[in-house]
Amino acid sequence: MKIVVDAMGGDYAPTAIVSGVVDAVEEFDVNVILVGREDEVKAELSKHNFNKARIDLLHAPDVVGMHEPATVTLRKKKLSSISVGINLLKRDPSCDAFISAGNTGAVVAAATINLGMLEGVERPAIGLVIPTLKRFAFLIDVGANADPKPQHLMQSALMARVYAKEVLGIPNPAVGLINIGEEASKGTGFEKETYKLMEKRVANFIGNIEGNEIFSGKADCIICDGFVGNIIIKISEGLMESAAAVLKREIKKAPLAILGAMLMKPRLNHIKKLADYSEYGGAPLLGVNGLVMISHGRSSPKAVKNAIRATMREIEHNINTVMVSEISR
Amino acid sequence: MKIVVDAMGGDYAPTAIVSGVVDAVEEFDVNVILVGREDEVKAELSKHNFNKARIDLLHAPDVVGMHEPATVTLRKKKLSSISVGINLLKRDPSCDAFISAGNTGAVVAAATINLGMLEGVERPAIGLVIPTLKRFAFLIDVGANADPKPQHLMQSALMARVYAKEVLGIPNPAVGLINIGEEASKGTGFEKETYKLMEKRVANFIGNIEGNEIFSGKADCIICDGFVGNIIIKISEGLMESAAAVLKREIKKAPLAILGAMLMKPRLNHIKKLADYSEYGGAPLLGVNGLVMISHGRSSPKAVKNAIRATMREIEHNINTVMVSEISR
Repeated sequence: MKIVVDAMGGDYAPTAIVSGVVDAVEEFDVNVILVGREDEVKAELSKHNFNKARIDLLHAPDVVGMHEPATVTLRKKKLSSISVGINLLKRDPSCDAFISAGNTGAVVAAATINLGMLEGVERPAIGLVIPTLKRFAFLIDVGANADPKPQHLMQSALMARVYAKEVLGIPNPAVGLINIGEEASKGTGFEKETYKLMEKRVANFIGNIEGNEIFSGKADCIICDGFVGNIIIKISEGLMESAAAVLKREIKKAPLAILGAMLMKPRLNHIKKLADYSEYGGAPLLGVNGLVMISHGRSSPKAVKNAIRATMREIEHNINTVMVSEISR
Repeated sequence: MKIVVDAMGGDYAPTAIVSGVVDAVEEFDVNVILVGREDEVKAELSKHNFNKARIDLLHAPDVVGMHEPATVTLRKKKLSSISVGINLLKRDPSCDAFISAGNTGAVVAAATINLGMLEGVERPAIGLVIPTLKRFAFLIDVGANADPKPQHLMQSALMARVYAKEVLGIPNPAVGLINIGEEASKGTGFEKETYKLMEKRVANFIGNIEGNEIFSGKADCIICDGFVGNIIIKISEGLMESAAAVLKREIKKAPLAILGAMLMKPRLNHIKKLADYSEYGGAPLLGVNGLVMISHGRSSPKAVKNAIRATMREIEHNINTVMVSEISR
């Protein structure tokens, strides 16, 4: 397996990216091509000992900033690590996938334009593996398409089922549609139409699920538009951070509580690990004609390594081929 | 002050409602008219000692179920506690407000149809006071209108500022629009247009705020459509419940952690209280021509009492009059 990795993407690039890649080639049977500014990436690589046969380097002089507007930037920076990396994946049949922790909008745009769409899929969607009270769930779309049509959500649901089955190993994934009530008649015209389409076409569709059921484990695949999905993951992050901040503040007010927190620490750390997205790898960009994985902008070396592991599972299970055959049925 | 209270609304009606009303008239300078099935409400009242001059009873034979479709039910059950209560508020000038913990859709429909809209407001919206890291914020709309137009959100923002100023006592409330990015160019056409309207018309508009900033205290008034608002409050509830369940499960695995949790208990209870919506009263239905408060369906007597207290503050500050003058400026 050969994976192309954007060395310049994310808040801690290239340091964290290179470090994660070195760990990955050490631990897994995978080769990596790092794409980015040659001198900077070389300087990072020189800090590590690793099997030189496993990591290659491809120079890309431009870097897309994390907050630059995607489409403008892509036109101006044709030699960015994102564009060069995506093009390498497209042209070189020995390359299996592309991973970036960079500007999400730019990755989505570059992948959509250069790789094109999978047969039967009209729009890309970003999925995310989230922890639930039972096991894991696959939430899609978390931000590729803020204004989709009902059939786009239906296509995402079909792709999500393949992902949950093949990559997460869930035998017959239950699919739920995010809505503001259980009944098919709830929500706006958009949700009602999506419900009807999914009822007809998606196996094991369990109907609407409400906001409070997302983390309950009721559904294995949770379908929503990219606007709502973005709000869901950000509010979850924000709420857990706020809760942790309040917890710390309150504990400090009482010496006995400080002692209590010390005694609880190993369990609290375990929970923190359970809730840590970086444990589960990145967020696959589904629907494009090629395997593309988006890693969190705040990616640590561990997150990069886990993104590579998750991508290897996608390659192994040949998910895009399975998706196309599922959608064409 | 005289407040009309739906005795039959909510999962624990009429028991919890009557109990909360008795506590309220004991503690506050307020009179209440309970609306509902006379025999059931009388039976509950007979369990308490209270000042008889403070609580009146108005018979309404029908009860709207918590999950019945609102519009159908209202047509069939013309003598429901919701319809009779709203009509009493409309007809009797000595009544100042109506509170219900019943079917939200039915309360919104009955209030909109019977009371009509405030001058300059086209659609109703439900607000909710939420705790943040700093103080409180006012989130609107949490479920009255899932498919609004940009001007509806702008009108909600103007009402929210009045509410935050008059009822929550925040001097110059900062207003934020929920979106998937900070820049004015983010989101769908809907958000972009709403942003422009709010920029022109709403004082102290601080722009877009993202999901992770909702509980940070950055904005005092947080504006969104009723679909997104419903998801936000339900996901927050669900996430805190899931987090508490995981915490309990993990603590039980280690004796030292059990001891630690016992030592932390007073602080954990304090946090639970901070995060408890019932501490902050109900959710005002804004935009209708009359004061209507919606209390959580799972309302406890304490939540009912706090909803009455919050409603008294609305009456004192004459918020509907202030809103109309603010909107007509």
